[in-house]
Order: sequence, then structure tokens, then C-alpha cells
Amino acid sequence: MMDILEEDIGLIDITTEGLGFGAKAAKISFAPKTEVIVCGVELVEQMCQRLGLETQCFKQCGDKVRADECVLEAYGRADAVHKVWKASQNLLEFLSGIATKTNHMLLLARLHQPHIELLTTRKIFPRTKALALKAVYAGGGAHHRLGLYDSILVFKQHRVFFESKEAFEAQFAKMKQKFLEKKIAVEVENYEEALYFAHLGTDILQCEKMDFETLKRCVALKKNFPSLLLSATGGIGEHNIEDFAKTGVDFIVTSSPYHAKPSDIRVTIEML
Amino acid sequence: MMDILEEDIGLIDITTEGLGFGAKAAKISFAPKTEVIVCGVELVEQMCQRLGLETQCFKQCGDKVRADECVLEAYGRADAVHKVWKASQNLLEFLSGIATKTNHMLLLARLHQPHIELLTTRKIFPRTKALALKAVYAGGGAHHRLGLYDSILVFKQHRVFFESKEAFEAQFAKMKQKFLEKKIAVEVENYEEALYFAHLGTDILQCEKMDFETLKRCVALKKNFPSLLLSATGGIGEHNIEDFAKTGVDFIVTSSPYHAKPSDIRVTIEML
Amino acid sequence: MMDILEEDIGLIDITTEGLGFGAKAAKISFAPKTEVIVCGVELVEQMCQRLGLETQCFKQCGDKVRADECVLEAYGRADAVHKVWKASQNLLEFLSGIATKTNHMLLLARLHQPHIELLTTRKIFPRTKALALKAVYAGGGAHHRLGLYDSILVFKQHRVFFESKEAFEAQFAKMKQKFLEKKIAVEVENYEEALYFAHLGTDILQCEKMDFETLKRCVALKKNFPSLLLSATGGIGEHNIEDFAKTGVDFIVTSSPYHAKPSDIRVTIEML
Amino acid sequence: MMDILEEDIGLIDITTEGLGFGAKAAKISFAPKTEVIVCGVELVEQMCQRLGLETQCFKQCGDKVRADECVLEAYGRADAVHKVWKASQNLLEFLSGIATKTNHMLLLARLHQPHIELLTTRKIFPRTKALALKAVYAGGGAHHRLGLYDSILVFKQHRVFFESKEAFEAQFAKMKQKFLEKKIAVEVENYEEALYFAHLGTDILQCEKMDFETLKRCVALKKNFPSLLLSATGGIGEHNIEDFAKTGVDFIVTSSPYHAKPSDIRVTIEML
Amino acid sequence: MMDILEEDIGLIDITTEGLGFGAKAAKISFAPKTEVIVCGVELVEQMCQRLGLETQCFKQCGDKVRADECVLEAYGRADAVHKVWKASQNLLEFLSGIATKTNHMLLLARLHQPHIELLTTRKIFPRTKALALKAVYAGGGAHHRLGLYDSILVFKQHRVFFESKEAFEAQFAKMKQKFLEKKIAVEVENYEEALYFAHLGTDILQCEKMDFETLKRCVALKKNFPSLLLSATGGIGEHNIEDFAKTGVDFIVTSSPYHAKPSDIRVTIEML
Amino acid sequence: MMDILEEDIGLIDITTEGLGFGAKAAKISFAPKTEVIVCGVELVEQMCQRLGLETQCFKQCGDKVRADECVLEAYGRADAVHKVWKASQNLLEFLSGIATKTNHMLLLARLHQPHIELLTTRKIFPRTKALALKAVYAGGGAHHRLGLYDSILVFKQHRVFFESKEAFEAQFAKMKQKFLEKKIAVEVENYEEALYFAHLGTDILQCEKMDFETLKRCVALKKNFPSLLLSATGGIGEHNIEDFAKTGVDFIVTSSPYHAKPSDIRVTIEML
Repeated sequence: MMDILEEDIGLIDITTEGLGFGAKAAKISFAPKTEVIVCGVELVEQMCQRLGLETQCFKQCGDKVRADECVLEAYGRADAVHKVWKASQNLLEFLSGIATKTNHMLLLARLHQPHIELLTTRKIFPRTKALALKAVYAGGGAHHRLGLYDSILVFKQHRVFFESKEAFEAQFAKMKQKFLEKKIAVEVENYEEALYFAHLGTDILQCEKMDFETLKRCVALKKNFPSLLLSATGGIGEHNIEDFAKTGVDFIVTSSPYHAKPSDIRVTIEML
Repeated sequence: MMDILEEDIGLIDITTEGLGFGAKAAKISFAPKTEVIVCGVELVEQMCQRLGLETQCFKQCGDKVRADECVLEAYGRADAVHKVWKASQNLLEFLSGIATKTNHMLLLARLHQPHIELLTTRKIFPRTKALALKAVYAGGGAHHRLGLYDSILVFKQHRVFFESKEAFEAQFAKMKQKFLEKKIAVEVENYEEALYFAHLGTDILQCEKMDFETLKRCVALKKNFPSLLLSATGGIGEHNIEDFAKTGVDFIVTSSPYHAKPSDIRVTIEML
Repeated sequence: MMDILEEDIGLIDITTEGLGFGAKAAKISFAPKTEVIVCGVELVEQMCQRLGLETQCFKQCGDKVRADECVLEAYGRADAVHKVWKASQNLLEFLSGIATKTNHMLLLARLHQPHIELLTTRKIFPRTKALALKAVYAGGGAHHRLGLYDSILVFKQHRVFFESKEAFEAQFAKMKQKFLEKKIAVEVENYEEALYFAHLGTDILQCEKMDFETLKRCVALKKNFPSLLLSATGGIGEHNIEDFAKTGVDFIVTSSPYHAKPSDIRVTIEML
Repeated sequence: MMDILEEDIGLIDITTEGLGFGAKAAKISFAPKTEVIVCGVELVEQMCQRLGLETQCFKQCGDKVRADECVLEAYGRADAVHKVWKASQNLLEFLSGIATKTNHMLLLARLHQPHIELLTTRKIFPRTKALALKAVYAGGGAHHRLGLYDSILVFKQHRVFFESKEAFEAQFAKMKQKFLEKKIAVEVENYEEALYFAHLGTDILQCEKMDFETLKRCVALKKNFPSLLLSATGGIGEHNIEDFAKTGVDFIVTSSPYHAKPSDIRVTIEML
Repeated sequence: MMDILEEDIGLIDITTEGLGFGAKAAKISFAPKTEVIVCGVELVEQMCQRLGLETQCFKQCGDKVRADECVLEAYGRADAVHKVWKASQNLLEFLSGIATKTNHMLLLARLHQPHIELLTTRKIFPRTKALALKAVYAGGGAHHRLGLYDSILVFKQHRVFFESKEAFEAQFAKMKQKFLEKKIAVEVENYEEALYFAHLGTDILQCEKMDFETLKRCVALKKNFPSLLLSATGGIGEHNIEDFAKTGVDFIVTSSPYHAKPSDIRVTIEML
Repeated sequence: MMDILEEDIGLIDITTEGLGFGAKAAKISFAPKTEVIVCGVELVEQMCQRLGLETQCFKQCGDKVRADECVLEAYGRADAVHKVWKASQNLLEFLSGIATKTNHMLLLARLHQPHIELLTTRKIFPRTKALALKAVYAGGGAHHRLGLYDSILVFKQHRVFFESKEAFEAQFAKMKQKFLEKKIAVEVENYEEALYFAHLGTDILQCEKMDFETLKRCVALKKNFPSLLLSATGGIGEHNIEDFAKTGVDFIVTSSPYHAKPSDIRVTIEML
């Protein structure tokens, strides 16, 4: 957490130094202005503690918090309180925003399909993955793939390197064999691709930017391929997730929660 | 840049390993789908080079790029191309999105006040400041404050530590004296505060969430305090920046560009 | 790679400093004393280049190299050659040792089962995972799991946290649902557990320290559970891997390659 | 220690997340399956504490621990217990293995020469030096040289840079003078080299891969060079260290302990 | 703080290991040999705590401490005490030296001008800025600029890039406009430059290596430019700061405190 | 080197950004104002290259450079030149200052004793050891000890942990035995201690703050202890090093070079 503090504090807090009240006793507390799924509480706690503040947490990561309910308080020197203020507020606001939106999208989708899952992509602002991931889980979502290292997903950008269908199919089979502990996912863009890859023994079809009719045709492949899983991806947000859920896909793959509006967290600073 | 690649690649790219085409010759190229102010080109170039790819840049950070114009190409092993793909696409998309929105907001504001400046806040997702800052400058904006270390900005959360107005004023004067190379900014929320701090010798009044009438009254203080600067902040976006500009404030302080929709960058991968 | 050099060089190479020949022109070359699957060549190349040496590579990571065939040469200042010497030799020796042993074990296993895979565990000396992984792949193996983050593997140490079989089964189903892009693996220690988990819908049974008869009974479960995969693990090495392969398991999970004897790499240093 | 945990945990423990028991109360305890010299206890303690577990240590680094004696217990959340499990077990097993083997080799050597020392080389898997060193000391050994920076050791690979014996001897004398606080060690491969370097005023002769007869002849040089120290190195292990000790060398230089079989440490995880 | 300890300790404290008393109970205490403004106390406290020592602080950063007054005591294992000894002594001595000299220079200057400020430059030994800055503040000084990122200071080395006076002036005006939250400082070397830049609307004239007469003429510009601030810089030390103060400049910019003689801190180590 | 640049540049060079000439072609060159032993050239070269500048070096680390001789030139974008300017100037000035003073002290000492060595202590500003060490070697000096990890030096602060002389002597002998590759140094403060430790078999007596008569008596111990080495330490500088050299000690241990006045390096920046 120290890098987050350092990014904001740098070498000196000039304002507090100039105003000279650093040694006074202070309290800082955090409460959302509207109901949120809160995320980042234990990170803020650690930040406070690293600056020598004592902390008391009233809520945990993932809790639903009503407007004005106190999430966390910290006590100690006023200069430490001012050092932690904005860095911790930013953290709570951004993470709670993601958690809240993730949760909302998930609830919308489950109105129509109780077992649908919401998984978030690796299309994320560089250096924010570790933090955003916590927020997605806090909101009830999960990750689609952490990066290149934890799953197999074949794009057409992979397929261009094969000079023939036969060469690709042979290698596809080898990959299934070598990475036998992994499910094989393929991004498909139309029904024909979906059908083709279902026949090749793909475990997961990631249906990219398909219209709802096509999506439903693809989902219908499950009759013949009972262990096949299908996801919808591309342009899914709060406004249309219900329609996607209605198509019967097994899960939604989306970056939308990463772009959530930060939650509004009221920070109160008092002299003790 | 290596940390950005590592965040996405981790220990191995399983898909490319499984498909076994890593040693083939490949080309990757980047072009926006719509007109953008591009940002991050030289960072993507560095990422490509660290992975052993040769690069050719056609555009620079800050350039306006039309739809489908190529920004950058890189050549080399297919496994390196696949390693750099999404990490570089994310970087370009997020940064160009911020640059483009910054530029758009600035142009809107200058329709009404040719010398107004657009400065962005420190209310930003943790760990993204260095990257976002590049994008803000690429779009013609500048930074309001990098953090606690580079400027003085007095909030009411500072003022609570003074038991009397006199105590505060005495210390305020000391701060002005000690940090005489800095301008002193104060966040004010109404006309009375603005007037009070103008009298105290404040250099910059940061007008937080004021209605336009109040803002205009505050701007009118410049008649009596000719070196006074005023900024508007709080809830400013593309939809209302023109109205803020019309009030006559010297600059806008906003976090809005950080929440820009990522630009759509088409990435083409070919076998050579 | 710089950390590996720094670990060995520290602040100064006293011997070379004392002998004063640092500015002379030198050549260093690397060749195995016996046939190896070589690994680490490109890392050594990077280390040489960081110290200002020019390099020429004759072999690539994963190549079979005969005794005395030159793998890599580098040229430049004698002090740089002495700085890189042992750090690069260690790297090549350890990694080539692992690659060679991985390859040998794999070949032994495939004598009896042509499609068996050799996957290595996360039971590895701390801080060596990234390097060892390269070597395992160079030898034709793959990784079992990188860590806790990339796969699901249920141990009995997880199961102790459930007060009833029903509670466990309910949660097991939820996990399958939530992480639907992952295969579910379970470590089992006897036939009864194997049978139980096959019925629960487990994708992979990791058979821990079973005798060959039990292993064969477990493999026979594939008749009724055609998509079930089975691995053997625990105490598998070059001496017994053939017997394990004969049981018909789909793959071997082993730490044995990590403990390979380092390959003997002859390093020749000459004055030019 | 955090890097060791991170290497194994990464961004999320999927299995524990999926099984949902993370908040339950748990206990983890560590005990060797056979007698060991334990090493790494305080590191495991720190790892546990960083994850929020409370710890109780029953043994210290370097203690001889009997089979099934508890070394360390930790208590806290089940998810923290599962995060620390394998990373700490690996650490304890590898380090205790090295410590135990170091100790065993030392005891064997001292059967024949009570004052012989066992020093370990810098021929070690990259990035493991700091950890392995602890284990060597725990077992009663010491380090031969940490790297290039802490001692002088002349190899023939240094001597190739001198065009004449005279040039070398002149510079050798200069080195002795400049680094007068250091002992000068030289690696020699036969009796003639040993004699030559003894005459040159070398403090330590490191006898590389000599047969026992030659080694004894070298040791006999101590009659004429009473302050001369001699070590044997090259291919020394548990199987032959006694023979080396019998030659009368002052110390053994070996990499053998680094290749110790990891000790078997039983880890017990319980729900509280 | 860990990097400071590591720099001094490295992988092992050989002397303490050799003398074998590491587990004994020890106390270490720090007291200056002459009166100082102490600095670094809380950093030493952190270093002690990271090594497992208990601490008691009697003085704070910035306190005036008389000769032989105890600043800090720590208790614990003797090996930890020996690890922290010199690293902490160095830190206290260097930082207290800077703080004490800063304070002395400031007092000398204020004999002649009660409101003069003492600001230190960025001309500092690489990697010491964060530490030295603490000491400057402890002594009552402040920083002139942290680096390129926090202030605007125009040198003639910037001006060479303009082909005409007009081009420069136009751009200078743009810079004032764009960075309107910053004061604009210019380094000037004679009266003519000072006059020119005062007319251009510069906020701060940094008078480099001027004689006292010229300096006084520059200060006299304040009559016509009432908000203009002037600093003196170049070759200012304890021997001549009073003369500079007498010229009426608003502040002194100096690197002199960075070169302070380290304070003499007596360290007492006892067995308990 | 990147950390040194970052310390000075931070996130943005505001002045150059404001003046808008960043893309112009520029040249920067470095020449001392007075004769120096130059140090840091290759580090400045690396810094320039990391910022995209082309470089040409005319001098090497350790060269004697006359006033106004050019050491290094670099060419490229003006913004890169301004980024590297002060960070590189500081580096060259501080390191050349140390190298020059080290060399001067050494020459003074050798007027009286041709084989005396000048070794520098570990009493150094935290975080500067790696850089200062280069400068000491450039000036012809060497290091006394890098830290606790590379040598044995017994202080009275070690001896307090022994309850009897016998206990100490027994352990001292054990240490000599265990660390038989190291010379044993002891800090002594008077003749009696010197005599005592010479009898104990100490290799090096470090004579702390002795008067010249005592020092000579200690040096006279070499008659009876022919392999004994003696150093003088404590308060040695340019003003008195000749007197210390005359006492006949084998080497001088000093921190004085670390406090050298930085050399004056003229930096010229031109538009091309």
C-alpha cells in the first residue's frame, strides 16, 4: 500500500507543514453518501496504520453499506490524517464504485438467469488490475482471465499464423493435449465459427459482439454439445445486460465495471 | 514499462505456447477507429522494443489521428507480438481516451473564454497518475497539483485544527512567508469565504461546487484584487464546461478526463 | 536479469580490480561437457549485453546440444567478462540441468504411453519459479499450476473446514458454477475418494502416493466418466516414472526436475 | 518475505475463494517427519504475521528437532492459513534440508579432523543465496565467498590476461599490497601450482579436484609455509567428505548442501 | 528504512556471528557529544523496530538536544543491536549535522532580517534528497525546489533555445498563462537581467553570484514591483550569510547545509 | 541510474513544458573548471542514453582532466537535455570531488611512505555507498569494509558481551578458526590494547584516535609480530595525513573523502 501513499504524498505535505498543526490530535472517518457495496476498507486500514494511526473498522470489504454509515475511523496525529486523506478516499471511492456496479449488473442479469456469472476482462487501465480485482469479487463477480498466464483463449489473431485449416486443427489438438488441465476457450464472431469450434472440442465459446438471435442459435448448440459453455462479450453494460442474460449464455464477460463512477465517500476530519 | 507488460503476461503466454507458432514472423499495427488525440505511442514503442520487436512510429503523442491512420507498427517474432498485444492496446486506448476528452473539454471551454485553462485533479485511480498525466498534457491540459508535495491548497479540513480565527490567520500569514515561492490556494464554498480569503491575501480561490451566480460574484472580486485567480471545481464535465467557462473563471479544475471512454484502437496482427 | 548479476557481483569485483586487467579485450564462451537440452541462453545473452559485451548465440533455449558444442560467445572488456562468468555459468548449468532431466523423464514415460504429459508442481525453492519454469518448458514439460491464482485444486486441508459432507458438496457445486472457466481438480489418496469425487463431477483426480494397483483401479473409472482426467503424484522420479506411465494416467505431476543435477558447462575465457 | 508469498499466491487463491470458508477460524502447524536441523522458522513466522495470523514458535533456526515435534503454530483466518501453507512449507523444507545436510557433512568431516570447516560456494541457483546462506549457518557451516565483492580468489581464468609470468607476479604483489586487509586465495590444480603460489605469498590454496595423494602433498607444504591454509574443492559430498578430511586440509569448499533433499515437513491444518 | 539497513548489513554480520553472542540481551543508546538540532530519531526508531528491538524515544526530530542528553534507547538481542549500530549512527549524525547547520545559518541571517527564509537547492548527492529534506526542515529551513516537477525556474540554458527576444517573450507569457497556479522564477546574473525580467512579470528573481552592491540594486526594484521577490544564491555559507541577509533579499537559496559536518553522536552499547 | 533521474525529474519538467522548446535539437557538454580526477562519466553516459540522447565520451572514470577539457558531450532533444542536466552535473561534481580528494590525500601520504594505502570507511551518508565507492577507486583509494558482511572488525562494543577475558579469548579463537579465510581486525585505543591483541593473533590493529607517539609504539610491534598490519583512523584529513603517514602505519582508514567539496563542472547547453 505504501506506493499508493507515496504517489500522493511525495516528499512532503507542504500545506500541513505550512499550517503547523501536524502534532495535534485528529480523527478521520469515512462514510458513503449513498448505499454502496464497500471495497478497500482493509487497504485503507493498512495505509492508516503505516502512518501511525489507530484504526477501527465497522465494515468489511463486500458489505452493503447504507448512506452515512461509518465504514472506518482512524485516530492520531493531524499530519498523518492529512497524508492519508485523499489517497484513501480515492481508493475507497474507486473500488466501491466498481464493486457496486459489478453487483448491480450481476443482479440485473440474474433476474433472468439465476445461475449466470459475471466475469471481468483484462481490458483494464495498466497497473490497476490487483485493486480492481478485489472490487469485482467484493461485488460478487469474478475474473475472466488474469492475463495471458492463467487461461487459454484463442483469437483469430492466433489463427492467422496457420497456413491451413488442417495445420491449425492439428495444433489445436496438441494444445488440448498438452494443457489438459485447462479448459480451451475460443472467441467466435458468428454461428459458423461457433459450430466449427464446438465440433473441434472447444470447452468455451466466447461470443464476441453477436446480435441476440445469433447468440441464441449458439446457445442452442448446447443440445448437441452438453458440456459446452458460452459467454457473451463486447459492449455489455447495465443498459443491456438483461437482454444478454435472456439469451441463455452461461456467463457474461465485460469490462464495464472498471468504468464505474466512483462512489461518493464523505470524509470527515476533526480535531480531538 | 516492464511492469505493465508483466502485469498482463505473467510467467507464460499459455495460448501461444500451446499453439506453437511463436517463432514465426509477425507484424502488429495500431490504428484508431475514430479520430483521436493519440497518447502512449512512445510507451508502446518501448514495450515492443523490450520484447525484441522492431518498431516504426508514424504519429507522436499529442497528434490528432484520423480514423484508420496507422499510429505504429512493430515486427518480429509472433510470440512477442502476442505478448505485447493487449497490454499495448489497453495503454493506447485508455491514454488516447483521456487525451481526446481533455482536448474536447478544453476546446469547449475556450469557445467562451480563449485563455481559460483546464487542469486535472489528484482524484485519480491509485497507481495511474504518471500515465494519466501524459494523456492530459497530450490533450492540451495541465495538472492542478501532482500531490501534497508540489502546491499549497487549504481546505476546511485544515482549518478545523485552529481554535480561533486569529490563530488561523496568524498561521496563514506564516505559511505565506515560509513558502514564499508558492502561490497560496484555498478551496472556498461560498461568496463569504471567497471574500474573506481574498482579503487574507490568497493567490487562488478554488470555488467548489458553486452555482453560476455565486461564481460570477466571486469572479467579480478580481476588480478589487487584480492578481487574484479563480477556478471552478466540482462536477464539471463536457455537458456543462461551457457554462463554467462563461462565468469568467481563470481555470477549470476537473477529474472528468480520467473517466474518459477508452478510444477504440484497431490492432491488426499478420503473419509475414 | 540485473538482480542475478547483482547478487553475485555486489559493489565491486575485488580480484579483477586487484589484478588490474579490466580494460583488456576478452572473450568468454560456453559449451556443455555432455549432451544437454540447453536452457537460459537468451538470459545469459541479456546479462552479457547489460555489461556491455557483444554476443553471438549459436543455440536456442530448448535445443539439444552435443558435448563441446559452443552455445554462446561474448566479447568485450575483461572486467565485464569476469563479472558475468559465474552468474551466467550457474544460470546455464541449473536451467539446462532441469531441462535435460525434464526431457529425460518425459521420454521415459512416453515409452509406455505416447500421450502422457509431464507437469511440474509449485513445490519449488522460493524465488526460483520464473527461471525453473523456462527450463521445464525447454525440456518439453509444462507446469501443473503456477500458484494459487491460476487453477483450482482441492486438498483435504480444504475439506476440514466443512462440518458435513452436505455442506461441502453444496459449496463444491457452487465453486464449479462460479469458476466455470476452470477445470476442478481434487487430490485423492485412495480409490474410495477417487470414486466419490468422480461422482461429484470433478474434472481431474490427482492421485497422491497411490500404489500401482490402486492407480490402475482409479484409471478404470474413465470407463464410466469418459471426460475424467487422472494424474499421479508423489515420489515420482526417473527410477519409477515408467511404472507410473504404465498405469494409464493422463499425466504425471512431479517436482523431480527441480532437483536435477546442474549440467556441466565449460566456460572458456581468453584474452584477445 | 512478501515476495515469496506473492510468488505463490499471486492475485487470488481461487480454490479458497471458491470454497468460501475464508473467514473461518483455523490453525496451521508444522512438524518434521524425521529428525532435522530446522531452518526458516522466523521467516515463516514473519510470513504468517504479514497475513494477519498469530504465531507461536517452539523451535529456533538451527535447533535439532525430532520427528513430529512441533516447530511452529499459527492461528487466524482460514484464507490466510491457506495462503501461507505451501509457501511456508516449501521454505521450511528446502532450508531445513540444506541445514541438515550441512550439519551431517560437517560431522562426518570432523570425525577425522576436529577443526575442519565446511564452507559453501557461490555456485548456487540464482536468487537463492540469501535464503540458502541462513541454512548453511544453521547447520554449522559458513560461507566461502558471498560473491565477487567480499574476497579475493584468483583463477587461471584471471591469469590468462597476463602475457608473462613476471607481469603476473608484479601485479599479484600489487594486489596483495592494495587489498592488504584481505587474505589472498588462489585456485590450484596440481602440486606444482600449489608450490608456486605458496612461494608467491598466497594465504590460501584452494585445491581443485585433486586426488588424495596430491592433496596430501599440498598439505605438507604447511611445514615450510606455516601460515598457509588449504582447502579442497570439487565433487565433494557426503560419500567422500571423510576422505577429504583425512588429507588434513583446513577446510572444505562445497556446493553439495545446496542440493540437499528437502526435509519432509508435515503441515497440519485444522478448523478451530 | 530497510534499504539503509541492508546497505550496511548485507547478507550477514560476520563479526557478531563469529563472536557468538547474538542472543544475549543488549541495550543501545544515542546521545550527541555537543548540542545539536537532532534529526532522524523516528527513522532510527523504525530501523530498530524492524530488527525486533524495543525502543524509547526521548527527543523528537527538530528538538535542540544538549550534549550527552539521551535521544533514543533500544533494547533486545545483541545481534540486532550490532546490526543497527552504525547505520543508525550514520543516519543520526548526517541528518543532525544538516539540521544544526541549517538552523545556525538561519539564525545568523535573521539577526539582520527577521523574515528572511533559508531554502535549500536540488544540488545534492544523488539518492539523498528525501533524507536531507527532513533535516533541512528540522533545522527551520525549507526547500527551494524538490526537482523539475514542482516549480518553474528559467535559466539562461533555457533561453538559448529561442531565436529572438520576441519569441522568448511570447512563450514566457504563454507559460505564465498555462501554469497560472505557479510563481515564475528566473535566475538572473546582473542588474540588467533583473530589470528586464521584472518588467516581464516574473514573480521571483533568483540572483546568482551577484556582488552585494548589485544585489542591493536588484532589491531596490521592489519599489516599482511591489510583489516581486528576490533571492540570493551561489556561494553562500555560514561565513557570509549575514552579509547576504543585509542586502534585503527575501530569501537565501543554498546547498551549504548539505555539506554540514556530521554531528558527533555517542553510541553506547551495553549487555543487560 | 533511472532512480537518480527520477529523483530529480519526477513526473514532469514544468519549465521546459512551459517554454515549449522540447523538440528542438540540443547539445550538452561537461567540462571541469579546475583540474580534477573525473568520476561518473559512464554513469552520466547511461543517463543520457536512457533519455534518448547520443553521447560521446572523451574521458574515462579515473582520468585526470585539466580545466576546461571536455569530458562528455550528448546530443538530442532539448527536453531530454534539460532533464539530464542537473542530475548528471550533481553526479559528476560529487563523484569527481571525492575522487580528486582521495587522490590528493593518497599522494600526500605517499610522500612519506610509498606503500601506504588509503581505505575509506562505512561511515557514509545512507544510500550513497555504491556511488561513493566508485569515486574512491577512481582516486586510487580502496574500501576498508563495505559493511558488516565482508570483513571482521572487533570493537569494544563487541567485547562488552563477554563476562570474562577468558570467555572472550576462547570465542576469539573460535572466530579465527571458523572464519579462517578472513583476516581478523580489532580496533584498539592505546598501546596496551594493541599489545594484547597482537598477542592474541590479530591480523590487523586499527588504531583509533591515537597520538603520534602511541601510534609509533604500536607500529614498533611489527618487529615481534612480523605479519601484523596497522592502520590509523579517526580525524584524519588533508591537513594531517602526512603526519599519520610518517608514523609508519600500513594504511589509513578515513571518511574524509566522502566530505570532499564537489568539483565545479561547467555544463554548456546549446541549440543545434
